[in-house]
Amino acid sequence: GVAPAAHAQATVRWRLASSFPKSLDTIFGSAEMFAKTVKALSGGKFEVSVHAAGELMPAFGVVDGLQNGTIEMAQTASYYFTGKNPIFAFGCAVPFGLTARQMDAWKNHGNGRKLMDAFLAEFNIKSYSAGNTGTQMGGWYRKEIKSVADLKGLKMRLGGGLFGEAMQKLGVVSQNMPVGEVYQSLEKGTLDATEFVGPYDDEKLGFNKVAPFYYYPGWWEGSAELEFYVNTKAYAALTPEFKAIVDAATIVAARDMGSKYDAFNPQALKRLVGAKTQLKAFSKDVLDAGFKASMEVFAEHEAKSPEFKKIHQDMRAFQRDQILWEKFSEQRFNAYMASVKV
Amino acid sequence: GVAPAAHAQATVRWRLASSFPKSLDTIFGSAEMFAKTVKALSGGKFEVSVHAAGELMPAFGVVDGLQNGTIEMAQTASYYFTGKNPIFAFGCAVPFGLTARQMDAWKNHGNGRKLMDAFLAEFNIKSYSAGNTGTQMGGWYRKEIKSVADLKGLKMRLGGGLFGEAMQKLGVVSQNMPVGEVYQSLEKGTLDATEFVGPYDDEKLGFNKVAPFYYYPGWWEGSAELEFYVNTKAYAALTPEFKAIVDAATIVAARDMGSKYDAFNPQALKRLVGAKTQLKAFSKDVLDAGFKASMEVFAEHEAKSPEFKKIHQDMRAFQRDQILWEKFSEQRFNAYMASVKV
Repeated sequence: GVAPAAHAQATVRWRLASSFPKSLDTIFGSAEMFAKTVKALSGGKFEVSVHAAGELMPAFGVVDGLQNGTIEMAQTASYYFTGKNPIFAFGCAVPFGLTARQMDAWKNHGNGRKLMDAFLAEFNIKSYSAGNTGTQMGGWYRKEIKSVADLKGLKMRLGGGLFGEAMQKLGVVSQNMPVGEVYQSLEKGTLDATEFVGPYDDEKLGFNKVAPFYYYPGWWEGSAELEFYVNTKAYAALTPEFKAIVDAATIVAARDMGSKYDAFNPQALKRLVGAKTQLKAFSKDVLDAGFKASMEVFAEHEAKSPEFKKIHQDMRAFQRDQILWEKFSEQRFNAYMASVKV
Repeated sequence: GVAPAAHAQATVRWRLASSFPKSLDTIFGSAEMFAKTVKALSGGKFEVSVHAAGELMPAFGVVDGLQNGTIEMAQTASYYFTGKNPIFAFGCAVPFGLTARQMDAWKNHGNGRKLMDAFLAEFNIKSYSAGNTGTQMGGWYRKEIKSVADLKGLKMRLGGGLFGEAMQKLGVVSQNMPVGEVYQSLEKGTLDATEFVGPYDDEKLGFNKVAPFYYYPGWWEGSAELEFYVNTKAYAALTPEFKAIVDAATIVAARDMGSKYDAFNPQALKRLVGAKTQLKAFSKDVLDAGFKASMEVFAEHEAKSPEFKKIHQDMRAFQRDQILWEKFSEQRFNAYMASVKV
């Protein structure tokens, strides 16, 4: 029935802290799209102020901010918080994990969201997709990676998540540094390689000028799902109408981000190749070594945590089914399309 | 700023006519999800009644219904209306066309939506995605299709769109009949084959018992995007808040449908194979003949209509870029994942 009471509701103001800078306009744009949508849907009665990393708190402080109620909402990559618990990684990306569509299906109509939100409850967090980057590139390298041996001793800047542990098994020496220092370090040679996202984001940083070998695929990020984290108490305090607005606006933002990456990456890739980037495929040898190391990492975490094991196994069972079905649908269709001139 | 006027707005009631029956719970569920979301977002002030095919008007009467203002909204597959103008097909699916993610990117951040809505304006229609089935199967056959010669004289029930014209070039004899009569016709042998959607929808109709050869991929539907069509005058009469609600609720519904197909298709496929369905890949010979015939169909329509040519060429340029980028991202990642045991 009609709920006129909802229209007498007071104005609500939330603060959203992003773990990302404004310069990543696809990702940060998803937080802005969320806020814009909330405002439009509520006729201006619900406003969300969006803050870039560092404005309210450090990029990696947002989970603490939510847990202690400093902010109502965050936009982040969950794998930044594997130091708190490795389970966080499943919200965003794990090595040889789900693609964007698989992730959406696992969370939305599989057990993914349910399992992750049960885990996140202790942090007072309820999660939503904020958009997916799709399969990422495998990073920029000053020298070619011809075999697994070339990874040994490689000084590489790595993003978050469990793949750092797999890289360590392969002999990669992880280097922690702010994005702003990466270019200079590659130029000086104090850094051998860096991974980042994909053509559209990477192009802005100019890595092709100092590390021209651009490898694919990023086996540690078959997709990377950014997420909105909402403080469960702030959410519970909303009217049903405003809850529905938060739920819907996250989906609007997530969809916009994903399709933006898909639309913009090809052009950026062509520009990068025009600017002497050398596209290189990781050899089967390297992928196999990465796969073996990754499976060891998962086994180690499973041995330590039944909760980790439960979520990991649920994700893998879902993934196996997806891979089976894709063999008879997208994979076959795409292979044919790649073989003809449209 | 705050817009208190929006909260004094009158109750709005719309009627949505679907071209689909309730039994297609994924597709029809998207219309129901749209209505449910609109109601929740508006605090019950905006209600949309959802009507299955035939309730208010015939399945294929919805464009006329929108054009003459009988209904405010429809849910349909645009390629049902290629008899009015072949351009309609681009909203849903054309042979060797876009995949689900490509379609979303083309419409949302390419020129797709803009071009299609300019075309649809003469029908008083504004369009939105209602969800995508993903790559469809190539249908059910009583006998194996070993070569192009086996298509000659094949009596087959076909869905909508331009691919019927391509099938005709291959010698297929298109049979028009309601879905409810297909099973019996296959059993009697008055029909040799039928195409429908994919495992989850097809399973309900039991075709495997009478036409056990289940071919892939459905080259005429690399994806099929269902759409919401909104009467432009009804939309223009909405407050900014209710316009935002319609916009957002379509995205919520579309996302839900797509991920539901992805999550449910693998299980249905396994059950079908357990029930003696024989999965068969179309040979390269058959795909090549389908591709050649399809390109002839496109060339014929381009020669007749500059507007058709403009939209088709825009879509193909977008598709070429997507295929290029996927070679370095999803395609490579997925190929590796299909080669290992996760």
